[in-house]
Parts: sequence; structure tokens; C-alpha cells
Amino acid sequence: MLNQQEITQLFKETRTDSELICSFLKTEDYVVQPVEYVSPPKWHLGHTTWFFEEFILKKYAEDHQLFDEHTAYVFNSYYESVGEKVIRTDRGNLSRPSVEWIYDFRRYVTDKILELLETQELSAEALGVMEIGCHHEKQHQELLYYDIKYILGNNPLFPKYNDQFRENPIEDFPKKWIEIPEDVYEIGHKTNDFSYDNELGVHKVYLQDYKISNKLVTNAEFLEFIEDGGYEKVLLWHAEGWDWVNQNNIRSPLYWHKIGQSWHQYTLNGLVPLIGEAPVTHISYYEAFAFAQWKGMRLPTEQEWEIAQKYFEWGSRWEWTESAYSPYPNYQKADGALGEYNGKFMVNQKVLRGASVATSRDHQRYTYRNFFHAPLRWHFNGLRLAQ
Amino acid sequence: MLNQQEITQLFKETRTDSELICSFLKTEDYVVQPVEYVSPPKWHLGHTTWFFEEFILKKYAEDHQLFDEHTAYVFNSYYESVGEKVIRTDRGNLSRPSVEWIYDFRRYVTDKILELLETQELSAEALGVMEIGCHHEKQHQELLYYDIKYILGNNPLFPKYNDQFRENPIEDFPKKWIEIPEDVYEIGHKTNDFSYDNELGVHKVYLQDYKISNKLVTNAEFLEFIEDGGYEKVLLWHAEGWDWVNQNNIRSPLYWHKIGQSWHQYTLNGLVPLIGEAPVTHISYYEAFAFAQWKGMRLPTEQEWEIAQKYFEWGSRWEWTESAYSPYPNYQKADGALGEYNGKFMVNQKVLRGASVATSRDHQRYTYRNFFHAPLRWHFNGLRLAQ
Amino acid sequence: MLNQQEITQLFKETRTDSELICSFLKTEDYVVQPVEYVSPPKWHLGHTTWFFEEFILKKYAEDHQLFDEHTAYVFNSYYESVGEKVIRTDRGNLSRPSVEWIYDFRRYVTDKILELLETQELSAEALGVMEIGCHHEKQHQELLYYDIKYILGNNPLFPKYNDQFRENPIEDFPKKWIEIPEDVYEIGHKTNDFSYDNELGVHKVYLQDYKISNKLVTNAEFLEFIEDGGYEKVLLWHAEGWDWVNQNNIRSPLYWHKIGQSWHQYTLNGLVPLIGEAPVTHISYYEAFAFAQWKGMRLPTEQEWEIAQKYFEWGSRWEWTESAYSPYPNYQKADGALGEYNGKFMVNQKVLRGASVATSRDHQRYTYRNFFHAPLRWHFNGLRLAQ
Amino acid sequence: MLNQQEITQLFKETRTDSELICSFLKTEDYVVQPVEYVSPPKWHLGHTTWFFEEFILKKYAEDHQLFDEHTAYVFNSYYESVGEKVIRTDRGNLSRPSVEWIYDFRRYVTDKILELLETQELSAEALGVMEIGCHHEKQHQELLYYDIKYILGNNPLFPKYNDQFRENPIEDFPKKWIEIPEDVYEIGHKTNDFSYDNELGVHKVYLQDYKISNKLVTNAEFLEFIEDGGYEKVLLWHAEGWDWVNQNNIRSPLYWHKIGQSWHQYTLNGLVPLIGEAPVTHISYYEAFAFAQWKGMRLPTEQEWEIAQKYFEWGSRWEWTESAYSPYPNYQKADGALGEYNGKFMVNQKVLRGASVATSRDHQRYTYRNFFHAPLRWHFNGLRLAQ
Repeated sequence: MLNQQEITQLFKETRTDSELICSFLKTEDYVVQPVEYVSPPKWHLGHTTWFFEEFILKKYAEDHQLFDEHTAYVFNSYYESVGEKVIRTDRGNLSRPSVEWIYDFRRYVTDKILELLETQELSAEALGVMEIGCHHEKQHQELLYYDIKYILGNNPLFPKYNDQFRENPIEDFPKKWIEIPEDVYEIGHKTNDFSYDNELGVHKVYLQDYKISNKLVTNAEFLEFIEDGGYEKVLLWHAEGWDWVNQNNIRSPLYWHKIGQSWHQYTLNGLVPLIGEAPVTHISYYEAFAFAQWKGMRLPTEQEWEIAQKYFEWGSRWEWTESAYSPYPNYQKADGALGEYNGKFMVNQKVLRGASVATSRDHQRYTYRNFFHAPLRWHFNGLRLAQ
Repeated sequence: MLNQQEITQLFKETRTDSELICSFLKTEDYVVQPVEYVSPPKWHLGHTTWFFEEFILKKYAEDHQLFDEHTAYVFNSYYESVGEKVIRTDRGNLSRPSVEWIYDFRRYVTDKILELLETQELSAEALGVMEIGCHHEKQHQELLYYDIKYILGNNPLFPKYNDQFRENPIEDFPKKWIEIPEDVYEIGHKTNDFSYDNELGVHKVYLQDYKISNKLVTNAEFLEFIEDGGYEKVLLWHAEGWDWVNQNNIRSPLYWHKIGQSWHQYTLNGLVPLIGEAPVTHISYYEAFAFAQWKGMRLPTEQEWEIAQKYFEWGSRWEWTESAYSPYPNYQKADGALGEYNGKFMVNQKVLRGASVATSRDHQRYTYRNFFHAPLRWHFNGLRLAQ
Repeated sequence: MLNQQEITQLFKETRTDSELICSFLKTEDYVVQPVEYVSPPKWHLGHTTWFFEEFILKKYAEDHQLFDEHTAYVFNSYYESVGEKVIRTDRGNLSRPSVEWIYDFRRYVTDKILELLETQELSAEALGVMEIGCHHEKQHQELLYYDIKYILGNNPLFPKYNDQFRENPIEDFPKKWIEIPEDVYEIGHKTNDFSYDNELGVHKVYLQDYKISNKLVTNAEFLEFIEDGGYEKVLLWHAEGWDWVNQNNIRSPLYWHKIGQSWHQYTLNGLVPLIGEAPVTHISYYEAFAFAQWKGMRLPTEQEWEIAQKYFEWGSRWEWTESAYSPYPNYQKADGALGEYNGKFMVNQKVLRGASVATSRDHQRYTYRNFFHAPLRWHFNGLRLAQ
Repeated sequence: MLNQQEITQLFKETRTDSELICSFLKTEDYVVQPVEYVSPPKWHLGHTTWFFEEFILKKYAEDHQLFDEHTAYVFNSYYESVGEKVIRTDRGNLSRPSVEWIYDFRRYVTDKILELLETQELSAEALGVMEIGCHHEKQHQELLYYDIKYILGNNPLFPKYNDQFRENPIEDFPKKWIEIPEDVYEIGHKTNDFSYDNELGVHKVYLQDYKISNKLVTNAEFLEFIEDGGYEKVLLWHAEGWDWVNQNNIRSPLYWHKIGQSWHQYTLNGLVPLIGEAPVTHISYYEAFAFAQWKGMRLPTEQEWEIAQKYFEWGSRWEWTESAYSPYPNYQKADGALGEYNGKFMVNQKVLRGASVATSRDHQRYTYRNFFHAPLRWHFNGLRLAQ
């Protein structure tokens, strides 16, 4: 549990980071929503700010004057139990409030929060919500990278985001299998550090003997799958994966482009030739599963991943697991709007473990349970084989 | 493992039962497909017959003369690796082949199979496929009940199916909580009797302490949930359940009708007043989950159900569990077309355990892993609470 | 205006004809609805019967006992102002009432109407509604042919309807251009014989000089268009026609099948090799228009057709015209439910003139204004060029 | 036919006007596309510029250096016969090229065109295309107003565009009926001034006696229709209009909002109380038709409008007519890409006559045939009764 000084530091860094991420954008890039699950960057900036005004300033700051009572509700999100919300698919239709307005809103709320933190000793409860607010904003920082990549990478001009972002770290060490013996193991978040509610409730699981790779699957390996006709072999796929592949005419990971005879990939640094030794990314769970089937292997479960993770490096790709996103034994969701955070998504999604090149460094921990729908691909994901 | 004589007996009974189920239909009832996941009864009769011709007669009967080489492919199903298939949603458009043709086809194949069984000693492999074929037909018998109920129950005239079918057995004993202690338990199909591949691979699991009810939730209890506004309380629902409820304007289980002030339910015996003490049925997983949330409880996992099942009666409702349908450790799918049977559905579905009033008696076992998509309701399902 | 005896004769023939058309069907064929604009044959039989009970017996027969007060409403149609209606797209889901029930219903109503006609002198108004009822049933007879062809012709088994129906009469006379001079002409229904309200209101139009072909376009001519790449030349098409062609991957008229190297067409006599000299049929307005563009010509307007029709033979194909379906000057729609018959369709449809091989002989007249949406093809249509 | 000096003047004014219209926008407003038929303002600015580069500079300017060969294709439009096009519904997803880029593109092309006009004597053909290019841009100026209003008016903050735009001129003179006698009249564009191809081909029509109002229908009159339950009376509507009303839950014109008990309308000056005496606008053809039915009257045909227009004032609303958009007798579409301009839309659209408050002053003429699909409402339309 962080103290008020640590929270202040975390808050400052977090607020600055979000704006740094957006500093490479043109005004126009802040506005568009090319697909339902992508949000306009300005919405992320507004929404994370709304969170602090709604859950901290309105509750803990005496006589707080709202920045703009008629506008902020636009930035409410999936929290159905707090007021009106703007339909998610409409976000890309809204040219106002302007980007300038949003930066004013951010500045106002950041200043008011800092003023509160400097002038008042916050309760443990309030500090807890502050910490959630910071981690919430870090999650949106990661989404900002996904969404910016989608916006620029689906533009026929393929504009680059910047030259610095390192999207494709290479694992340049030999591949080997880590062997874990059958036993009862403990799963879940154990320390006092921050975690989400879905990681809590340390509990035992029984794992059978298994092996797990010390390396992620690479682009070169995935290319072999493509060249062997993996996308055309029905028996490798789930029934709904097969429908998805054919209805959407999927024949390669997202952002791969075959130009003439050579494969390219769009990265945040622009369109570049495919890097064979980099870990494959932007694949759906269906593709990860089909690849593993083709190899005669499988994906690990999230428990297998958690127990084995200390034996390998992780952090460049969110790793698809075989596990469906379900509550841990004795899972209790938090009260009120914050309780909507995790529990309500626990059906028809797959757990991903690890972290990615887009994850804020202090937002990474081995018990983190990320989750996405099986067909989604725009996040920095990847896969690690097990058997 | 059944011997050839037992298989012959099983086959005869199975073939007769399917036709008995359909004996209450008019010709017109065999043809329609009111919704994508319902198949016309004549399709079930043809498809189960096609299975025996395709996987037994073509392979094991010398010089087998196909009943009709131009027609039978219409009855291929989800087995994508065997020839052309008719698009599932088109089944309801086909008036031909006629019902009469299908009964001729059945008679022809049944006779040829019996001839084979009488004149030739079949290999273990062939007997195994015969057994699968019989259980496959029993599964379709259960689907026949679901689909017939849907076809008649969505007709504004509410025609009855017959007077005999017992759809609402009542559990008239006191409710109590069964307590199971934390421990390592064994899961999976252990005997030599028939099972599907998805039940195989006995393995250990660690279960925490839990309690499970000895009774199913009743209509009267579910009505309390409705009357307390359960369908309007967002916090009880999964996010996608909430969307489903609102997009489809769901306010009660399927087949419930409020006529004036009193609730009725359509049953295979026709429209009758709601029977409060009968176990609730025809609800989605979302509704089962929301009901449990409203009670401050939860659904059991499939492992919890399997370990506790010997302490309660089951068999009138397929019971929704919290478990996603995933492969057991070391799951291996069968080779070839039969391998498509189970594995390819192991994503985004929920496991149901037990059996129902529509399940063939020798198709019931406590390791059976049934599965349906979360929003589906037309099967005879129900729910049992855990905590 | 027909007298009561003539109406009786017309009524008897009409009722018999509908049943004769259906006498070639199996029970299953009566039930299905493969696409939204096709109705199950049993619905046509019931609906035309409902018309006579609703608009004649309920109004003019003293103490009329309804055949079945709970069921007949199923057969109400587009008459939104009379009671509840069954949603059109649901018609194919209803296995009940059964075909047998419908024939009983027909017999009951036919007998009651004949009894009324024999025992009571009907008012001019009642005789007028009787006449409309007969012509209404004749229209449904034509739809029965279309729908039966669609049901059987979209079945992969291509069952034939019968051997007698003559679908492809050949115009074996030389092609020539009929020239009509610029002038003021009179348009509209002039006699006392039966007509619909949309033909009434004789009025003058000014026509410029034009030429119109004495022959319909043939299959052989249309094949030239196909072979010249007509379906791939964007400049021949309306913008929405081009979208329609590409979204539906249209490359030939409906019911044409290229088997190996040779074109076949499904007819009510079964699948036969394409008959080059027969008039092309089952094309959309878009295709008719594109063909005419390709020829450097155009379709006639309905007024041009009406003035020129006495110089050519017509009656085997409903002929697409360039005219949108709009009210004639001084058009007045009838009062009440019967007023819904025509006027409410006068937007976004195209007029077709003439008659077809499926049109009842005494339902043909040169002022008849038939109409269909531009993309529809399942009726026996065709085209005649003008310039 | 304008000479080169006049064309130069027209071109300069046109280019300036487009930028003036957009001078009230924020950068964000240029980017969004809230609905498929609205284009982002930056697209209009780019597309009209692309037109001049594609059809003038590439063809008539020696050694023309393209501004950017990789980008301009984004601004191709419905001209399917010129190169690749961006799918229309994707326009709102493109944040690049930026607004700044587009203004650079405009400046470059404007300068190059002016250079061409100053240094070279253009052929009559080239001057003709220049004139079309200017009128094409004027059409897009009108669309800019529609689209800007849609973008701002569908934003929950209801931002105003500016204070100057006069959207609601009032016709403050007595209502009376203009009577036109039956006769043969001449229709079509007769002078040498600019017109589109669809107005050409002067021809005779025969009109019956008719009356037409000297005033447009007002908001107050339309409110009476609403208050009389016009939107709930099925017999007033076309069948597809009735479906449209109910599927979209339409109960008032677009941009009308009932706040408490009083009606407001969103205008380009912001949200204001409904102005009863202003002419109603933003209604569909279906609503115009239903209103006329409710009055026991009808809409005029486009020919009736053209003949009577000299007896009334027009120009504030595009007036829905009863006429479908069809070719005039002897209509010839232009060759090549420019030929796609009008002819390919001549199906399933309705003609509107007159002009609107958003129409460039020298883009108004009484023979102008505007056209929209029946359900569209975002243009400044209105209605005038006839009988």
C-alpha cells in the first residue's frame, strides 16, 4: 500500500506519461474511431481525467467546482451505474469537446488533485481509489498505443507514430523446454502491492506434469505455418475460428502486408520488412490455437504460466493462454461502480498473461490477468507453446 | 465396451426411439426451421442415418449400394472434412427430400446395418464407431425434443406435442446445503463404458471448501427474482448479458407468457399455468448467473458438480456451471472426421452437467460434459446454487 | 361490371384454379419460405380464403359463423388496418395450421360464399368486392407459380414441378422496329371491365417520337451480353445496380447454371439446357437497364408501351419499363383496407407491363400496371428494347 | 458559355467560398463522419481539388507535377472509372492526410490552375470542364453546410457553427392557390448558360389542370400534423415509409427536440425555440407525402413545379416532388468519367426542385433537378402542396 507521498509521485508520473504518449499525434489523430473497439485518443485522455474528478474530487475535495458540468459525462465509460453514458460506438462521431478543451480539463483536474494531495491527509480508502485511478490510467496508456497503431496502421498512407518506440525486442537465446512437475501449487496475488480484485484470493491448484517453452513463437515460425497452408486446414481450427477466418478472409496476422513477394509489417515506426526473429504479434486466440495444433502442442493454462514464469523472461507480448476468464475461488467484486471493473467481463473472454512493449513498467506483475475476446488482434499479444 | 450382440440391441432401440419421438408430428412439423440453431426434425432423422451409411456401411459393408448418391450429402453436418455440406441456416428452406423419402432412407440403412451385424463379425474399431453412432443419434433425439418444442412453442396457436411427455418433475424434499471439504479430487470418466473423448483423461484437481444445494432452483424462486426487478438491475449481470437482455427485451425465461395477471408456460403438453414448485428451465447462462448474484451466491464449477453429484439427485435439467468448456489436461482429439466431434467447440461455451427429461436414459452419466453458448435457452436447462 | 351469375362463375373457376396449381406439390412444399419475399404456398391458399371471409362473409352473410376465430388472423397480410398481423418473415416458421386444415378452411369458405351467392341478391358494392377478391386470388395464383419455382429451384435436388407447364414460348417471327409518331395520347383504363384503382383516371400524355421492338430480348442475346463482359462494365450500370451485382456476385439471370461448359436453366419442368431463342427471364431491372445500355438503347416508358402494345404480341413476360411506379393524375385510393391495395406501394418500385406465362388468362389487360422492386428477379419478367 | 476571363473569375470565387465556409470550424470538425452519407469536411475540400488536378491539370497543363502522387487518390469519389477509390464509409476513419496538408494541396492546385488560365488559351472543351469543376465545387459547398450541420447537430453539446448563417427566412405574405390550366408545356433547360446533362433535351409534356400553393408548408403546420397523430396513422404513409418511421422511431423532423413542453430546433446558429412561421425542413420524402395525404392533397410533380415556379418565390428549401428521378426523353449521358455524374443515379430517388439557403447564388436555376433517396433528411428540404 502506497503512502500519500508515493501516490503523489505515481499520480504525477502517470499524468505526464499519458500526455507524452500523445505528443506525437496531430490534432486529427485524436478524433477518429475506425472500429468499434478502438477509442479516439482524446477520449482516453478525457475519460481518465473524468475518473479522478468523479471518484476523487467529487467525493473527497470540499466544495469542488466541476470543470464543466455539461460536458464531462461524455467521458463516462462502461460504468453503467454512474449516470448517462455516450454509446461507445458514437465516440468517433464527436468532434467536440475539442482536444484543446480536453487538455484544459486535464490540467484543471491534475492541479486540483495535486492541491488536494498537498493540503489534506487522505483516508486509506481515498488513497486506494487514487491508486486504482493511476493504474486505470496506465491501462488506458496501453490502449492508447493499441489505438494509435490501429488508427495510423489502417490509414492507406501508413504514417509513422515516431522513430523511438521499440516494438520488436528479439529473444536471442536458445530455445528450450522448461519442465514443471505434477503438484499442488499456489496461485494469486500475495503481496500488499497493488493488484486488481480479479487476482486476489490466493488458492491452491493441482497441476499435472507439463513443459513450457522459454521463448515466444517468432514471425519466422508463424510464416512457416502460413506457408504450410495453416489458414486453409480446417482441422487445426475451432469451429468459430474457422468461420472467423473465412468470413474475414484472414490469411496473416494483423498489420502484415505482402508487397510483391516480400512480407512487411506496419509498426509504430512505419512500414518495415518483416523481422523474422521478432516474436509474432497481433494474432487472435484462434490463430494462436491453430498454430499450436499445427505444432502438435498447445497453449499453457494461466496457472501453468504463473507457476513457470520465473523460469523465463516475459514482458514484450501479452501471451494468449488456454484459460477462459473466470472468477478465482472466493472472488468478491468490489462495491459500487468500481465493482464493475472486472467481474462483469468474466464470460467468453480468454486470459492473457505477462505484459507487452506498451505496458507501463510499474503496471507489470506476474499475477496480472489480462483478458480479450478471442478474435481481437489489435493489442500486442503473442504466444508461448506448452505440451 | 459392448459386444456385437449388445450393439445390435442398442442400435435397434435407438433407431426405434427416434421414430417414436417423431410419431406425434404432422408432416409439416418436420420441415420448418424457425431459428438458425434449430434444425427441422426431418434433418435429424436423415443426418443420423447418413452417419451410419457414411461411417459404417461405406467402410465396412462389402459392395454397399448407396441409397441415393445424389441426395444423402444434404444430411452431412458440421463434419467439414467430409465432402460438401449444406449451409446450416438453409436447412429450413428444403422441402425435399420429402419426409417419406427420409423414412425410406432410414429403413434402408437400418436394414443394411442389421444385415451387416447379423452376417459379419465386426472389428473392435467398427463396433466403436457403431456405438458412437448410437450415442450420436441419442444426442439428436434430445435435440429433437428441443427443436420440436421450439417449433410448436413459437407458433401462435401453441399446438401441443402430446399428453404423455413429463417435462416438470418436482423435487419434493427439503432444501439443504451439501458441504464438501477442501482436497485433491479425481475428475473424468473412469470405466470402460461408453463416453465421449472430452470426458477422458482422469486427472486430479484441487477444490477449496464449498457448499452446493441438494435442489434445483424452482419457478417460484425465479419469479421472486423477476418480481424484485432482477432483469433491470445492471450490477447483477455480465456486461454482455446486460446487452443481451436489453437488445432482446428479455424479461422472463423462454416459453413463459403472462396472460392477464397470471404466468403461463408452454410445455410439450401445451400451454399451462406456471408450476411454481417445478425446477426453472429455458434460461440462459446469463440469467442463471444473474439469479445467483441476486442470491449472493454463485454457480458451481463443473468439477465441484462432479464431486458432489453423488449426494443429490440429478437428471431433469442440464445444469449451467460456471466452467467454460475447455480441454481436460492431456485431451487428445480423435483422428479424422470423428475428431471434429468435440474439440472444435472448446471456446466461448459453457459446460452444463447432469441430464434432462429429454435425455435418453442410457445416455446419462455423471462425467458427461454438455456445452452450450451462454445466450441459448431452448434446451431443458436449469441451475443449482453453490457458495 | 359482372352480374351475380358471372361473379359466381368467376369465383368457382378461381377457387378451383388455385387448388389445381397446388395439386402438384408435396405437403412439405407448402410450408417453406426460403427468402423473405417468397410466401409458403399454404399461406397463399389461406390468405385468399381469409379475404373472402373477412370482406364478404363477415360483412354480408347474416349470422356468419367464423371457421376458426383463433386461427384465421394468421392469414391477414399487408392490410395493416385490419387487426393483428403475423410478421411476413415469420410465415416460413409456422408448421401449423396444417395443409389439411387449410383445405378444410377453403372448402368451408367456398361453400359459404356459394350459398350466399345462391340465396341472396348481393349489392353492387358486395359484387364489386367479390370481383376484387377473385382478382386478388388470381394475383396470388401468379405468385404461387413464382414461389413454387423459387422453392423447388433453390433446392439442390432441382425437383420438377410438372411436365406440362409451358414456361418458354418462342417468338418465331422477324424482329422489326415499330415507329410511333410524336403526339398527345390517352392513357388509362377506359372500359367498364374490371381494373385496379391504379389504372383509372384516363388522361393525356405527350409522347416524343420513339421506336419499340416487336420482340422480347432472347436468352441468346442476353448470353452475348454476358460473354462480352456486361456484368463487369461499370459504366453500363446504375450505381446501386453495380453495388447489387457485386455484393451478390450476380453473373447471370436467376436460375441459370453453368454446368461444365454449357448453360442450363431451371424451369418448372426441371433443369434443362438453355433455350437460346426463348425470351430471357428472371432478370432484375438493373440487368434489363444494363443490357439496354450495352445495346445503346433503352427501356420504354409505361406510356410508350401502352400506346405501342397493339402492334406487337405480349403476354409471356412481364416487361420491365423505365417508369417508376407513381400515381396517375387524379389518382384516388379506395377507402378503408382495400385502399391499401396499391397506393401505398407507389415509391421506389418499377412498373412492368404486359403479363406472363403464369398470369391467369382473364387477368390480363394492356392497362395493367404491375410493379416490383428493382433487384427482384423471381417473377417471370423480361425486356423489350426502345430507342 | 463563359469565356476564359469569366471562368477565371468564377473559379476564384468558388475556391474562396469553400474555404470561407470552413473558416468557422475547428480542426476536429473537419475529420468526423457520423453517418455513411455525411463526408468529413476535409474530404470535400480535398475532393473538389482532386477534381481540378485530375480533369484539368493532368490533361491540359504541360508537364504538370502532381502535388502528391501517393495521396490524392484518397479524394477520388464515386467516379468508379478513374483509378482506385477509398470506400465511402471509410472516410471518417482517416486522420491523415491532415487538414494542413489539404490546405496546401488546395493552394497548390488553385495556383496551378490560375497559372494555366493566365498563360494559356484553353479549348472550349477545357473551359467546359472548368465550368463543371466550379459547379461541382458549389455542389460540395452545399453538402458542406449539410454535413457540418449534421456533425455539430448530432453532438450532445450542440455547438453552434456561427451567428450569421440565415437558415429560416420567413414567407410573410398571404397563402393562395396558383391555378394552371391543362395544356402542352415545354420542359427543360433552354439557354446557353450552364446546366447539368440531366436538364437538357427540351421536350413537351401534357399537364392536366392543377393548383399549387404559393407558400411552403411551415413548422407550425407540420406541428399540427404531429399533434394530430400523423406519425401514428398508417393509412397516411407509404408501406416503406411506415416501416421507416417505426424502425427508426421517427416522431418529428430531424433536429427537432422537445425539451420539457417546448419544441426546439438545432440550427447552424445553435439550439433555438421552434420558429412556427419558418418553412419546415429536414423531413424525408415519406414525411412530406404523409403530410400531404393528411391534408387531402399531394406533392406537385417536377413538371408541374417547373411550369408554375414563375408565379411563386423559391430558393429557401429544396422542395420534394412526387417525381421519381428518371431520364428525360433523349437523355444522353456524357462520355467517360464525367458521364457518371447524373445518369447512374436515375433509379429509386426522388426529384427535388428549387434551391436552399445553402445553395450558392449562381448555382440556382428553375430547371435544376436535384435528387435524394426518400428517407434522407439532412439537406435543407421542404414541401409545397398541390392539388
